[in-house]
Amino acid sequence: MKRIKVELPGHVYPVWIGNGILSRAADLMARAGFDSPPLVVSNRRVLKLHGDVLLSSLERTFGRVAVIRIPDGEEYKNHATLQRIYEGLFRTRADRHSWIAAFGGGVIGDVAGFAAATFLRGIRYVGIPTTLLAQVDSSVGGKVGINAPQGKNLIGAFHQPSAVLSDTAVLGTLAKREIASGLYEIIKCAAIRSTSLLSYLERRLDQVLDLEPAAVSHAVAEAVRIKAEVVARDEREGEERMILNFGHTVGHALETATAYRRFTHGEAVAWGMIAAAAISCARGNLTIEEGERLLSLIERVGRLPDLKGLASKDVWAALQRDKKFRSGDIRMVLLPGLGNTEIVRGLEPRYMRRFLSGFLSFGEG
Amino acid sequence: MKRIKVELPGHVYPVWIGNGILSRAADLMARAGFDSPPLVVSNRRVLKLHGDVLLSSLERTFGRVAVIRIPDGEEYKNHATLQRIYEGLFRTRADRHSWIAAFGGGVIGDVAGFAAATFLRGIRYVGIPTTLLAQVDSSVGGKVGINAPQGKNLIGAFHQPSAVLSDTAVLGTLAKREIASGLYEIIKCAAIRSTSLLSYLERRLDQVLDLEPAAVSHAVAEAVRIKAEVVARDEREGEERMILNFGHTVGHALETATAYRRFTHGEAVAWGMIAAAAISCARGNLTIEEGERLLSLIERVGRLPDLKGLASKDVWAALQRDKKFRSGDIRMVLLPGLGNTEIVRGLEPRYMRRFLSGFLSFGEG
Repeated sequence: MKRIKVELPGHVYPVWIGNGILSRAADLMARAGFDSPPLVVSNRRVLKLHGDVLLSSLERTFGRVAVIRIPDGEEYKNHATLQRIYEGLFRTRADRHSWIAAFGGGVIGDVAGFAAATFLRGIRYVGIPTTLLAQVDSSVGGKVGINAPQGKNLIGAFHQPSAVLSDTAVLGTLAKREIASGLYEIIKCAAIRSTSLLSYLERRLDQVLDLEPAAVSHAVAEAVRIKAEVVARDEREGEERMILNFGHTVGHALETATAYRRFTHGEAVAWGMIAAAAISCARGNLTIEEGERLLSLIERVGRLPDLKGLASKDVWAALQRDKKFRSGDIRMVLLPGLGNTEIVRGLEPRYMRRFLSGFLSFGEG
Repeated sequence: MKRIKVELPGHVYPVWIGNGILSRAADLMARAGFDSPPLVVSNRRVLKLHGDVLLSSLERTFGRVAVIRIPDGEEYKNHATLQRIYEGLFRTRADRHSWIAAFGGGVIGDVAGFAAATFLRGIRYVGIPTTLLAQVDSSVGGKVGINAPQGKNLIGAFHQPSAVLSDTAVLGTLAKREIASGLYEIIKCAAIRSTSLLSYLERRLDQVLDLEPAAVSHAVAEAVRIKAEVVARDEREGEERMILNFGHTVGHALETATAYRRFTHGEAVAWGMIAAAAISCARGNLTIEEGERLLSLIERVGRLPDLKGLASKDVWAALQRDKKFRSGDIRMVLLPGLGNTEIVRGLEPRYMRRFLSGFLSFGEG
């Protein structure tokens, strides 16, 4: 088992990563100072697949554990689901010493984490992410929240977990596409901060894709370590943390322009990284060889849903609606070299539009 | 004008207190670094009485200001009102640089502050409290939130304002009972931390009640200073901050047992302080003379709604439902002397029940 310490000003917490550690959940949590049962927030699918392992561990140590089931899917990351969690907390007479275990993918982490952030002005929660994407992305960083009818993640807070437990064994029940989505985020971490992780992925990508325990644990742990380092320097949304948005500018616009139906988040980010690398090369910062190294790693993960039929004016419009762009200043994370980032401000809108239309037609090829 | 600096770890903000400073709101805010118009959250009554002064100042400096009107009254401190503020923020295309001016009493500060805490994971807000209670109590400390059907203030966050502007001139439109309610909180601050403020109030109570500018400003500023000092040492809800709950244990139970209809918050706290002082005297910590000094100051403010007809079993039940009591450990803030506090744990439930029934019948006298 690997243990990574996330050190924020005033709050330190462990991320445990390992194969089969779900069955030791209660021991780890007891060691982290928990002495009462959590309220487990999860969904039917996750509970059916992995509920017994978690709950029997928790109940052996803490006694009876209450479970709040919420519906599965991004469309339920909303106020009604949040309300359901509050009601479960009230029903079980939760007090300010109570804690939530958010057991599932990113949606569960976000909404259960936001419930924890706002119930009695904040109670503790532990993340037990069950998708590769959640293990490397949303479980570290403390961004929690829900969607509004006006857009995704518009209502939320920063609320750090008290611990995160990532069992790589549970990834075996994921679809290939979900594994790939998580891998793109791992590649993103490597691209912005670690050529050694990049080399590792180049050497061991097949083993990671096959979920070979040592390879997956290493890749997850390195990505978490990189994300934790960045977040430690900038808990909120400053310049430093913005580097985690590498690939997200165009990626997010692609998601919005397709109403979140064509791409998973990771796939959209993968396209976004390709776009950002292309812009970095075009500006003469990244060498063509480096750009191709990143591109070929992304291509080895699997076939991305293509860009066919996407109108550049829709993607452009989506880009401009992005909450990071509202103030009109186009900023983007680019690569001056692999493992390094620069935040470029004031990108010329005409250049961006022209680039986008070229990029989208490239997707047609 | 007085200026008090609230210094929290990682966040410092000013509280301006003065007579007629509402007309200088925009200058002060520009000086505090704001360079765009706020979204003003207020209610019809406050806007009718003081809206022109604030809005003309803001519009002179910042241009057109959007206003979100929310309904007036504690019963609207709920999710529907929060939603209305979010919608106003979306309608005006607010982004993460936008800010809210919470212009009104405690309800407006709490719900608008909570909207600011959760919109786009947190935007800035400035408090412009218009009641004496809000000026000395809820405007400092960062507690924001809404009520749930299960109880008051159960959903919320800690989100510090970027500045607070307290114009004592607006207090002239308050009912006598609202002035008294605020004064009880000022007396609370004196009782727990400052015999010099206590002496000042003993000497100048009539001028404060008559809203004589220098006297009110001094009393408000001293109370804010005390609260800011306590909050600076303990931003969240630890032991230190708990001393601000002096008078709130029994006070809150009285409010709950009467469904918040008989007492204002300040009046309930006043009764709660009398109870806590009586227990302090009974335990031999506070001298009878000190207890009477506090009691007579409270009595000079005005006649408290009496305790007649309140069944001690209802108050006892309310006490046990208190969120601070859920874990069964009865803690209470007592006075080992005026200007000093001690937190007493594990009070004997039988003693408390007996005390309560005596205390309530004392109210009948």
